[in-house]
Amino acid sequence: MAAREELDKLKRDPLHTPLCELLGIDLPIIQAGMAGGPATPSLVAAVSAAGGLGTLGAAYMEPEAIREAVRAVRRLTDKPFAANLFVAPMRDDYSRYAEVQPVLDRIGAELDLAPRAGISPPATPDRLERQFAVLLEEGVPVISTAFGPLPEPLGRAAREAGRIVATMVTTVEEALTAEAAGSEILVAQGCDAGGHRGTFDTSRRPYGALVGTFSLVPQIADRVKAPVVAAGGVMDGRGLAAALLLGAQGVQLGTRFLTAAESGAHPAYKEALLAASEDDTVITRWFSGRPARGLRNRFIEAAEQSGLEPLPFPSQNTATGPIRQAAAERNDAQYMSLWAGQALRLLTRDTPAAHIVREIADEARSRLSGMAGGGPAE
Amino acid sequence: MAAREELDKLKRDPLHTPLCELLGIDLPIIQAGMAGGPATPSLVAAVSAAGGLGTLGAAYMEPEAIREAVRAVRRLTDKPFAANLFVAPMRDDYSRYAEVQPVLDRIGAELDLAPRAGISPPATPDRLERQFAVLLEEGVPVISTAFGPLPEPLGRAAREAGRIVATMVTTVEEALTAEAAGSEILVAQGCDAGGHRGTFDTSRRPYGALVGTFSLVPQIADRVKAPVVAAGGVMDGRGLAAALLLGAQGVQLGTRFLTAAESGAHPAYKEALLAASEDDTVITRWFSGRPARGLRNRFIEAAEQSGLEPLPFPSQNTATGPIRQAAAERNDAQYMSLWAGQALRLLTRDTPAAHIVREIADEARSRLSGMAGGGPAE
Repeated sequence: MAAREELDKLKRDPLHTPLCELLGIDLPIIQAGMAGGPATPSLVAAVSAAGGLGTLGAAYMEPEAIREAVRAVRRLTDKPFAANLFVAPMRDDYSRYAEVQPVLDRIGAELDLAPRAGISPPATPDRLERQFAVLLEEGVPVISTAFGPLPEPLGRAAREAGRIVATMVTTVEEALTAEAAGSEILVAQGCDAGGHRGTFDTSRRPYGALVGTFSLVPQIADRVKAPVVAAGGVMDGRGLAAALLLGAQGVQLGTRFLTAAESGAHPAYKEALLAASEDDTVITRWFSGRPARGLRNRFIEAAEQSGLEPLPFPSQNTATGPIRQAAAERNDAQYMSLWAGQALRLLTRDTPAAHIVREIADEARSRLSGMAGGGPAE
Repeated sequence: MAAREELDKLKRDPLHTPLCELLGIDLPIIQAGMAGGPATPSLVAAVSAAGGLGTLGAAYMEPEAIREAVRAVRRLTDKPFAANLFVAPMRDDYSRYAEVQPVLDRIGAELDLAPRAGISPPATPDRLERQFAVLLEEGVPVISTAFGPLPEPLGRAAREAGRIVATMVTTVEEALTAEAAGSEILVAQGCDAGGHRGTFDTSRRPYGALVGTFSLVPQIADRVKAPVVAAGGVMDGRGLAAALLLGAQGVQLGTRFLTAAESGAHPAYKEALLAASEDDTVITRWFSGRPARGLRNRFIEAAEQSGLEPLPFPSQNTATGPIRQAAAERNDAQYMSLWAGQALRLLTRDTPAAHIVREIADEARSRLSGMAGGGPAE
């Protein structure tokens, strides 16, 4: 079609928000950069190729593994994509190891793991600068961060290289901080969201800021200039349409893509998600030391029963590694970190990511046009 | 205008949902029946006269006071309105009084109240049947319930009298239970909401089910036939429009009306709300024995610091009465129950309720028509 005609069409499309222009994508649908395996190169590429923005969950990856994954995405699509990093102090604090490790040993014994309380605690690598360097070198166009904006001089280097930085925020105050630090996209993470709470400073709020998506999005949109992306409970076209009406310019979905065909989530994790309902999640700090929402299971119950505080992040995450690995090997979801948001009844099984993206867009458009003049789309 | 023309106009109006037909109202905007004073007859009547549905907060009222209030509403408007009742066992359980009352005495001492630990605990009246009888006698068209649907034979009496029963629900399971019990409207209360969690059975969940509004509404709408009303974080036309897109047929707002011109909320409470932001609320059981969301204040901090469990509802509510009353007399918001939802930055000061209702409707219509073809309404 002619350029004018195409331009007019784009202008009429309620899904073609300024966020799409900024990112160079067709649809304001971002797949969250879930760390730890679910966000495989094929999932990332499928979302981007379908017109959304896929995100590599690079936070826990070795720099060279990130390079491999970025190149794998590039072999599958030439569309823009993102990589997600954790911006949090990675200094180990094992001062309470002798108190906490016996709790993990008791749980580990249920998986036949040998006790580790007498063994020197393992060191957590601090990889942020090297991870970031790989993203710069490999030309990843969008860098998304959790727990805070990119610190200087990384933020400056990203800007100078023309990269777009998106930061997850959980309060209006964090949104203002991230925007002031140069983040060009603010992902408003409501407490409906699965996985780690993005709250920058959890010292005042051990479970993170817990403002619902419905409440958070308009309050942030009112206060910032940068485009806002709604995250937490968004699963389908209804969610995208509603997010746009609340003042967001796009949505970010994690949970929905966990059960996609290309997801790298463990099969037992996928089955647990598909069997769960809206009230089956809790926020726990026992897997990583930072608060995160996931399905209630034996690990969480046993750990919380101890009445103790876990170690801080990242030491707790490192300390629980053997349990999580044994659980994966045994296909036992009761000891895995089953990160999950609250709209679990809206999950679908093994749907190709491209289909999910297109279905969300089609449903959102249909609901929005239905609402304009024809009464509710029900 | 001609009947045909008017009918066509109504049919084209996305706000004129089947919920409006069921309730005989123009706009799908319900003012929540906040117990304890805020929902005065003038607030209720103003909302109903403006085309929404006002709700008397009758839960804590003596039956004859309800009768007076209903008549006061009727003197101000002939439009439909509702009254809200608590459907919860009202059996006192003071078995832990000797443990809990000293905590309240220490807090009460900060207000110069004499200790009550040695005094027989006060009895809580069980008034539901008499409250309900007054609503029937006075012809109140809509009865809304919290903590559960109307029990039999009250539910049957309501149906036989042609009254519409709306029930607040916090999970899909509760929605199905309420629908099966005859509730014709399901108010889906997300955890963004202020005031008491509507959760039916808090024995398994001491803080109630806490599913975000954004996640809860579509999951309930998918499973029930009755119209769903979204509650929790809805403050303006963006919220109404978004709720409709998520599958609701209307919205219920509590917090937004607390600072309305006609609100009976204590002036110090209103000021605290207007000074608060999205992250200033907590869920506590220390005011009433049931979980409720309100602004963090001295009472909550001091009570939670005790490390004890409060008494169960309604005994805890009765036991904290003297503190709340003294706080009101001294204009000291630090000891009041400051129920509040999470979208506090969207509050406005002293706006007449009719203006709030009309503004929400106008903004929702404008955003919905803007979205249909013109890109985001920003």
